[in-house]
Amino acid sequence: MSQPLRLGIAGLGTVGVGVVKIIRQHAAMLTARTGRDISISAVSARSKDKDRGVPLSGYAWEDDPVALATRDDVDVFVELMGGSDGPAKAATEAAIAAGKHVITANKAMLAMHGQALAEAAETAKVSLRYEAAVCGGIPVIKALTEGLAGNDITRVMGVMNGSCNYILTRMEDSGLNYQEIFAEADGLGYLEADPQLDVGGIDAAHKLAILSSIAFGTKVDFDGITLEGIERVSIEDITAAADMGYKIKLLGVAQMTGRGLEQRMQPCLVPASSPLGQLQGGTNMVVIEGDSIEQVVLRGPGAGMGPTASAVMADVCDIARGLSIPVFGVPADTLTTSQPAVSTAPAPYYLRMGLVDKPGALAKIATVLGEAGVSIDRMRQYGHANTAAPVLIVTHKAASASIENALQAMETTGVLAGAPVALRIEEL
Amino acid sequence: MSQPLRLGIAGLGTVGVGVVKIIRQHAAMLTARTGRDISISAVSARSKDKDRGVPLSGYAWEDDPVALATRDDVDVFVELMGGSDGPAKAATEAAIAAGKHVITANKAMLAMHGQALAEAAETAKVSLRYEAAVCGGIPVIKALTEGLAGNDITRVMGVMNGSCNYILTRMEDSGLNYQEIFAEADGLGYLEADPQLDVGGIDAAHKLAILSSIAFGTKVDFDGITLEGIERVSIEDITAAADMGYKIKLLGVAQMTGRGLEQRMQPCLVPASSPLGQLQGGTNMVVIEGDSIEQVVLRGPGAGMGPTASAVMADVCDIARGLSIPVFGVPADTLTTSQPAVSTAPAPYYLRMGLVDKPGALAKIATVLGEAGVSIDRMRQYGHANTAAPVLIVTHKAASASIENALQAMETTGVLAGAPVALRIEEL
Repeated sequence: MSQPLRLGIAGLGTVGVGVVKIIRQHAAMLTARTGRDISISAVSARSKDKDRGVPLSGYAWEDDPVALATRDDVDVFVELMGGSDGPAKAATEAAIAAGKHVITANKAMLAMHGQALAEAAETAKVSLRYEAAVCGGIPVIKALTEGLAGNDITRVMGVMNGSCNYILTRMEDSGLNYQEIFAEADGLGYLEADPQLDVGGIDAAHKLAILSSIAFGTKVDFDGITLEGIERVSIEDITAAADMGYKIKLLGVAQMTGRGLEQRMQPCLVPASSPLGQLQGGTNMVVIEGDSIEQVVLRGPGAGMGPTASAVMADVCDIARGLSIPVFGVPADTLTTSQPAVSTAPAPYYLRMGLVDKPGALAKIATVLGEAGVSIDRMRQYGHANTAAPVLIVTHKAASASIENALQAMETTGVLAGAPVALRIEEL
Repeated sequence: MSQPLRLGIAGLGTVGVGVVKIIRQHAAMLTARTGRDISISAVSARSKDKDRGVPLSGYAWEDDPVALATRDDVDVFVELMGGSDGPAKAATEAAIAAGKHVITANKAMLAMHGQALAEAAETAKVSLRYEAAVCGGIPVIKALTEGLAGNDITRVMGVMNGSCNYILTRMEDSGLNYQEIFAEADGLGYLEADPQLDVGGIDAAHKLAILSSIAFGTKVDFDGITLEGIERVSIEDITAAADMGYKIKLLGVAQMTGRGLEQRMQPCLVPASSPLGQLQGGTNMVVIEGDSIEQVVLRGPGAGMGPTASAVMADVCDIARGLSIPVFGVPADTLTTSQPAVSTAPAPYYLRMGLVDKPGALAKIATVLGEAGVSIDRMRQYGHANTAAPVLIVTHKAASASIENALQAMETTGVLAGAPVALRIEEL
């Protein structure tokens, strides 16, 4: 039997408490699987006195996470505080400098400082692991770095933020609008303290940036992501999309092209019957495509105490077993700088608009589309009680530039009642 | 840079050639990811002169896989011959005895001799890895042994044989019967040389036995599996199940119960709209449930050159990176002997029968079911041109013993035209 693996856990929110619970409940199982006892030496959080539902008196307490991270009796610093900078980053850097392994669930920190932290960890010959940072309990980091290591990865895509998916599927089910469901989700505690991280797509984009780096051997490039959140997704669009056989998802896509690395996180339509279309509530799904594997799909809970703690524990077990690979799958100093590329591959688009109720309105729209080189696959005009006639159009594949041109030309026709909505349709 | 990792590959069928292709095509990528060159020292197969579409002249040739496995210039013996005994087992044992790591895609060998081979490998302190043995390219062994190592696994289930799923979904799509589609699949080369391995459910049961061992820390117990193949699945049942909103799948389920380890591989009905119900063609799906993770679903190609070679290469990369864990996740000498248990948990059942066309026939069936304690959820009697009236029944949850009793009692009613069909409905 080797020496025990001693953890120092900073952050005792949902995930931190989940980790403590697993270690207390499954001590024998973890030892059987890793060959070592897993123990907690010390913990740290903002409030020492809060009742968190697990006994903590057996662990040393540190007010300062940096002090926790550098304790002599800590082998692994488990960073579950969050925040891209501040104490999380300071303590992570201190841990690495002190020769401690680090496990983090902090996607923001990795998206912003992953390169520097990875280089520091690899120089110090310690592990920096982050399974819990991407898609909660889904073991996607392990799948991509190890399980598919024999593949040239061609595309990574998926639904990576459970809160957004919860909001979108609740809107579908209830017929209520975005503001109402946003308030509901916020009341249930489903959103980050800064909800913009969720609904603005930022959290999901952090995850996509991390997956891109592993998939394509490039430095994490969060700023290179074409990013749009779900705030502008209306119940009218959800209903209309359903009517045409689609669901609206906040979908992330990353692929290497001849022009550079394409990364986008934006609301898209996907076929309602596809695996992504059927994803309900807080569930996440990642689709990984490679030259040998063809396609693998991973689905699981994207958040929550148990699932996220499960991912942290996978990292704990890897470290206990002595399993170590470079942070992003190849040595950090060999990661290349990618050229951000905007998607130019043609895709079908969904267009929704209101037309003023006068003769020739639809003809003008159709003409504008035709002149922009956008051909119509399906079109529906709905009955209407007021002066604006709701019109839905599904186009054949068109370049995003053609759609942009068509939308601009539409504005000059004088037949639009309000701004039209255009959403890409992702074929899976 | 470490020393190259030198492979000896025995078996140059589809998978072996796929592995050679990846190593030739992606040498730089593999070195970047593992920190070592991956080379092939020698190969072995039945016929030296066959053109396999890849140049093999750079590798030493061995007619005898045992000689290959023990060569001084081989660090890893890659066993892709198949067969539970014979040369595959002899060469694997020889490799372990000679201190070589082993990678195998041989589910039959592991299901039959996994315990002895694992003990031998762990005593010799070499790796024995088999990602390719279970569900082709899906990295499910890694997910279960490592990615979910913090979980008490509660259930593993899935569709684990692509050929069976191909046959069942082709029957659905074409309306053709089992014999016709079996012949088609055989002609396309989709079936094992002994097709009973596929359609008899044996191949899928081998995989289930391996997953059970990892999930529950038990010795592989293939003989403890309740096993039924797809040969008796008729086009009538597929059509009738579809009419009631279900698909028929060859479904494997393993769970630890208070009475012992329940393992079954048998045709079941699953909701048509469920992820398992939507699985088309040769795709595999594994559902893993654990106390923390809740549920993770992995979907991907269950066979084929690229996907299976991808799984072999994951093992190659793990060994090249120095990643090593016990063969079944815990030391083989600590695996427990499980008590096989037959499922007693009530489930809904699908019943299909033909009734003779006389008054009171349906009443007799309903009475028999009621007396056996089986209550009816839905029932349909179809119009009919001949004397037997087709009747479908979906029951509420019932114990399998109650269904057995009802089926026996039905035989005595004198109203059955032929033997009734009963299939379990798996709620997901």
